[in-house]
Amino acid sequence: MLKVYDDTYFMNQALAQARLAAAEGEIPVGAVVVSNERIIARGYNQTERLSDVTAHAEVIALTAAANHLGDKYLHDCTLYVTLEPCPMCAGALAWSQVSRIVYGASDDKRGFMRFGREILHPKTRLEFGVLHEECSELMTSFFASRR
Amino acid sequence: MLKVYDDTYFMNQALAQARLAAAEGEIPVGAVVVSNERIIARGYNQTERLSDVTAHAEVIALTAAANHLGDKYLHDCTLYVTLEPCPMCAGALAWSQVSRIVYGASDDKRGFMRFGREILHPKTRLEFGVLHEECSELMTSFFASRR
Repeated sequence: MLKVYDDTYFMNQALAQARLAAAEGEIPVGAVVVSNERIIARGYNQTERLSDVTAHAEVIALTAAANHLGDKYLHDCTLYVTLEPCPMCAGALAWSQVSRIVYGASDDKRGFMRFGREILHPKTRLEFGVLHEECSELMTSFFASRR
Repeated sequence: MLKVYDDTYFMNQALAQARLAAAEGEIPVGAVVVSNERIIARGYNQTERLSDVTAHAEVIALTAAANHLGDKYLHDCTLYVTLEPCPMCAGALAWSQVSRIVYGASDDKRGFMRFGREILHPKTRLEFGVLHEECSELMTSFFASRR
């Protein structure tokens, strides 16, 4: 059976968020939180606009998802994000106990993976590489345009 | 010359914040941000009240400090916190480029140090152990009272 709402579909939604960030001159990272095949929260990087280093796409999306659910834990939720989370975001996602994280492009310099996936909650499943070319290209072209 | 505003003084102010958290049934962690010997921001753990896993003392204090300064970077600031920060808070403090972090009690299980201080910004100075007995005791008695 054809699955309409698959990881590619939701990563495209995260990419749409990332493009909103780019349009505002923010480093283009976007995220969505999905529960039961429905998007319950969206977020994009707003560190410049809010002058707040914590205003990453993941933090905004997970806080919005917790508000939506009325529960600080994101059990049975998947967070899709265009870029490998940084340690701050990975730590926030650990506290949220989110069921699954899917990220697009890797971030060898700022990503959490160099500290090991033990930053995440042990029950959180992790996948990456979904639409990684599109996610990487968005970052590359953003930084190229600012040189 | 007698220094009135030393690390002990400011850690006592962070402890006062932690006691506000305890009074609200929150895990008692408190933080203050100091610039030029003045407290520019205070925060205490509010994860339960706000139903938000990101509402740790350090995150609240650093966001408030950035608002106060009108700058997302906390150059020339010291953050005092009663407990060793978790990876989320350490990552947030890294992005803030805070000059110095002083924490009281260690947190072997949830603290960032087991991932290495590379989570912090390379320019951030780190000290710990200030009033560590008082900071530990507050945590111990809080959890004992809830058993």
